[in-house]
Amino acid sequence: MVPKVVFGRGCFDQLPSILAPQRKDKAPFIYLVDDVFKENEELINRMNLRFNDKLIFVSAEEEPKTEQVDTIVKNIKSEFTYRPSGIIGVGGGSILDLSKAVSIMLTNKGSASDYQGWDLVKNKAVYHVGVPTISGTGAEVSRTTVLTGPEKKLGINSDFTPFDQVVLDPDLTVGVPKNQWFYTGMDCFIHCVESLNGTFLNEFSKSYGEKAYDLCKEIFMNGNLTEVESRGKLMMASWHGGMSIAYSQVGVAHAMSYGLSYVLGTKHGVGNCIVFDHLEEYYPEGVRLFKEMKEYHNIDIPQGICGNLTDYQMETMIDIALSLVPLWENALGEDWEQKMTRDKLKELYLKM
Amino acid sequence: MVPKVVFGRGCFDQLPSILAPQRKDKAPFIYLVDDVFKENEELINRMNLRFNDKLIFVSAEEEPKTEQVDTIVKNIKSEFTYRPSGIIGVGGGSILDLSKAVSIMLTNKGSASDYQGWDLVKNKAVYHVGVPTISGTGAEVSRTTVLTGPEKKLGINSDFTPFDQVVLDPDLTVGVPKNQWFYTGMDCFIHCVESLNGTFLNEFSKSYGEKAYDLCKEIFMNGNLTEVESRGKLMMASWHGGMSIAYSQVGVAHAMSYGLSYVLGTKHGVGNCIVFDHLEEYYPEGVRLFKEMKEYHNIDIPQGICGNLTDYQMETMIDIALSLVPLWENALGEDWEQKMTRDKLKELYLKM
Repeated sequence: MVPKVVFGRGCFDQLPSILAPQRKDKAPFIYLVDDVFKENEELINRMNLRFNDKLIFVSAEEEPKTEQVDTIVKNIKSEFTYRPSGIIGVGGGSILDLSKAVSIMLTNKGSASDYQGWDLVKNKAVYHVGVPTISGTGAEVSRTTVLTGPEKKLGINSDFTPFDQVVLDPDLTVGVPKNQWFYTGMDCFIHCVESLNGTFLNEFSKSYGEKAYDLCKEIFMNGNLTEVESRGKLMMASWHGGMSIAYSQVGVAHAMSYGLSYVLGTKHGVGNCIVFDHLEEYYPEGVRLFKEMKEYHNIDIPQGICGNLTDYQMETMIDIALSLVPLWENALGEDWEQKMTRDKLKELYLKM
Repeated sequence: MVPKVVFGRGCFDQLPSILAPQRKDKAPFIYLVDDVFKENEELINRMNLRFNDKLIFVSAEEEPKTEQVDTIVKNIKSEFTYRPSGIIGVGGGSILDLSKAVSIMLTNKGSASDYQGWDLVKNKAVYHVGVPTISGTGAEVSRTTVLTGPEKKLGINSDFTPFDQVVLDPDLTVGVPKNQWFYTGMDCFIHCVESLNGTFLNEFSKSYGEKAYDLCKEIFMNGNLTEVESRGKLMMASWHGGMSIAYSQVGVAHAMSYGLSYVLGTKHGVGNCIVFDHLEEYYPEGVRLFKEMKEYHNIDIPQGICGNLTDYQMETMIDIALSLVPLWENALGEDWEQKMTRDKLKELYLKM
């Protein structure tokens, strides 16, 4: 788990004093920052870069890729003689996952794609700090970093993946566009539904999942919260939602959404919404609530995105989705292969 | 925060494999175990002591003392040439707090009483593992270790206090006597009420406190849970309750209960219940629920324990209670001294 966390409006200002004791002589801090903040001088000034620290703006337009991790690591290694003092990720799930992966690959040989899977990482990562600027992914607390590789979309799941420090400042989420706010919040809601309805669940994950689920209902179905309350609560829903996966797994929506991302490059948040909207059969109560929230906030979910797929694309999408065995096992039990056939998956994808 | 945790029925059996990579050559693991397990060969065998590992049975009859910590540390230092590989606490809140304090004092000079307060510890503690065998105290997750010293009852609050690893096995709580189960569970319920009604609260602590509070209601007011469910849920309530204190504080009940412990040696769990039973004025809804739960489970709370106090004892009790400034500030606000006078405290204590 993440061993250190600060929470509070404005706590981002504590970042320099948090980093100071971690600084090693001549070894820079590398900041990976979502490029939506490129023009945001105020935010950048608050980071207070010193000495040879480096700020790299990264686009979150596409899902993070193993290749992208490898390139960033190569560039850091060629620019600096000393291994960085730390990696600081400032952004949404993509930037946070990228930061976790970069910090791992600075101390482990080969390509990030060699480590997609469970417990393959050998060496402790470089010190890494996560600063979420949008809430819902759970990437700030999770033990994985989901990457699209040459062969698969799969996380680097390891004890070295979680951040050493997380800075939870709800004010950093001011200004997130409404659709993005909803899609990303629903990432949390959906993975709670999947976790709470899964076969892997125990009381540890259940208690976190229930809290995140309750907070999502409070945030997305209740007009009485102030914006400040809503931002604070959503940041905590994301945190608890991520924790609930510790002893559990996601399910049908995430498996299918991974297929969409791999073939069409669909971003994770909206991809989950596109899929979940059609999963009444698997999560009746969750999907009913989702539709209510969607309506309440007047959100459009893209439609018909699988209409023009080639056969090859459809087969690849199905292959990717089916490759996520633990997700299916959690969702449908050990005999999931009898329950989720290629034909069934195709039928579902064609609705989307 | 605690960086590593395992949860699950029977997960205590993972302890040897968790400890193995932490073992340093010639450096023993020291097990501090509640002496109620003295005759429990099965439990002791599962710990699988090796080489020069040492098991010390400790009585939890009394609240842990700084003197007791100093003695254990002195004995360990004189028996072993090498600093221990780790300290493993197996027991309730007293044993867990003792284990945290011993692990700190093995690397810091002087007496444990020198470190009662906030952030006074200089050096990282020895690796330490917590295994709770009763649920409710939150000691397994907290950043403090409450000790009675020569001058005060106060915790060693520091970044080095939390366990490096916690093992949450609900089956270890089988066989806890009913009164003890209730008193310790109420420790959790009461500190949630205090935290949720306090002035220090933020959304971080609130979300944890609410979950623990909801779980307590589910456990103590609902006859429909199986024993297995109830044990798992109470272990998580204790965990979340402890987490909720991270950005909050306890309040009136804990401050007054510390006074009882200091003067009369009242154990923390029952002490909280004795006090809370008379705090309608401060926590009306919480006290109402408490009385309902007490009745539902047919629990007797000791009465009249302050009836025969000498003036000196009463004054000491009031001094100790009033010395816990952050607790009063959290409970009653910055002007707490106007609201909680010595006379008022005396009047409350005399009811108990």
